Amino acid sequence: MSATIKPIKLYSHPTGPNPWKVAMILEELKLPYETIIIEKADLKKPPYEKININGRAPAIQDSNTGLTLWESGAIIEFLIDTYDKTQELSFPKGSPEYYHTKQWLYFQVSGQGPYFGQAVWFTVFHSEKLASAQERYKNEILRVSSVLDRALEGKDWLVGGKCSYADISFVTWYEAVIPRVLAGVVDLPREYANLDAWLERIKARPAITKVLQDKAARASTGK
Amino acid sequence: MSATIKPIKLYSHPTGPNPWKVAMILEELKLPYETIIIEKADLKKPPYEKININGRAPAIQDSNTGLTLWESGAIIEFLIDTYDKTQELSFPKGSPEYYHTKQWLYFQVSGQGPYFGQAVWFTVFHSEKLASAQERYKNEILRVSSVLDRALEGKDWLVGGKCSYADISFVTWYEAVIPRVLAGVVDLPREYANLDAWLERIKARPAITKVLQDKAARASTGK
Repeated sequence: MSATIKPIKLYSHPTGPNPWKVAMILEELKLPYETIIIEKADLKKPPYEKININGRAPAIQDSNTGLTLWESGAIIEFLIDTYDKTQELSFPKGSPEYYHTKQWLYFQVSGQGPYFGQAVWFTVFHSEKLASAQERYKNEILRVSSVLDRALEGKDWLVGGKCSYADISFVTWYEAVIPRVLAGVVDLPREYANLDAWLERIKARPAITKVLQDKAARASTGK
Repeated sequence: MSATIKPIKLYSHPTGPNPWKVAMILEELKLPYETIIIEKADLKKPPYEKININGRAPAIQDSNTGLTLWESGAIIEFLIDTYDKTQELSFPKGSPEYYHTKQWLYFQVSGQGPYFGQAVWFTVFHSEKLASAQERYKNEILRVSSVLDRALEGKDWLVGGKCSYADISFVTWYEAVIPRVLAGVVDLPREYANLDAWLERIKARPAITKVLQDKAARASTGK
């Protein structure tokens, strides 16, 4: 597919989980792309703020279509609509699976990302140690994990018997919280066995392995 | 449109903002629907958990298509795809406006809802008063408000010169935080004039006015 497609610009940063969700979809679809790292200090001012008025990564610029777009969920939907014509990671338009994949993506962006992010914030970055706030968000990670674990009972994938963009979207936030919030607190393989096996299945995919390696390399050099 | 369409079941609760976003889209599209209130204590157990394994409202069951779906963002996308054939609240598939509308909906579900929700939680419901946590989320409300206010500079609507599902999606969380977090803190009409005028424009639409009245009536009786 990549022969006639011009590289898509992906605005990213080394440590944030959300740009790397988009990189995973780009890799899975074998799309050419260029990663442009925006330093945290440069997110909330021009010129980046002209690309994303919300001052966050990711954003993309796709010169094949002329589209500039931000919000990882919307970008994933755009990439799937536009470039996953053979439905490697998706399902026929209008089918129940089509909407159930969206449902899980919306759960990821609204129910996983923000709360996992707050858990990291209060555990690692907040100006004071607030035990009850830490507890609140650790508990929400466990609740979300229980939802996924139950949804995966007897199944390898969330929707339609194959790996879709919805499954993939959950990986980077687990990568963020496992070492920083869950270490020593939860034995994921024992307590959430379906979830743990599913995360390992996704991470074993070559495109996902590559992106996690790319992210680790960027994080270690900071650029 | 409603003559041949069977009522869509909307699982809701009286006080949560998210089910009412869906009700607004149903009203705007003149779709027949039945509101089923699920008590908070009944959300995270059967039979409702069979409808939504995440134990949250909203969910819908649409006997016209056989679909059961949860996550307000996914439900709105489904309703728009399926029932907004004349694009009253949306834009032609594949157009830039089509994706920019999704972008703002994703911003609403991931960038507004969760953080506005945390602001209400730490201001009203948390077990102890944590000033720095309250401050964190109040500041995020102001940041989100600044993004919207700047996006609306010189414009009546977020995308494409008309009211879309994206504009509508932001109303209920502002209704939740204005009295409980922002009262006495921010003078919205003065400090965020574009945002304030836009919220008033949306709320003046008959479908939106009706849903806000329905929600207030349910909240006062608790059912």
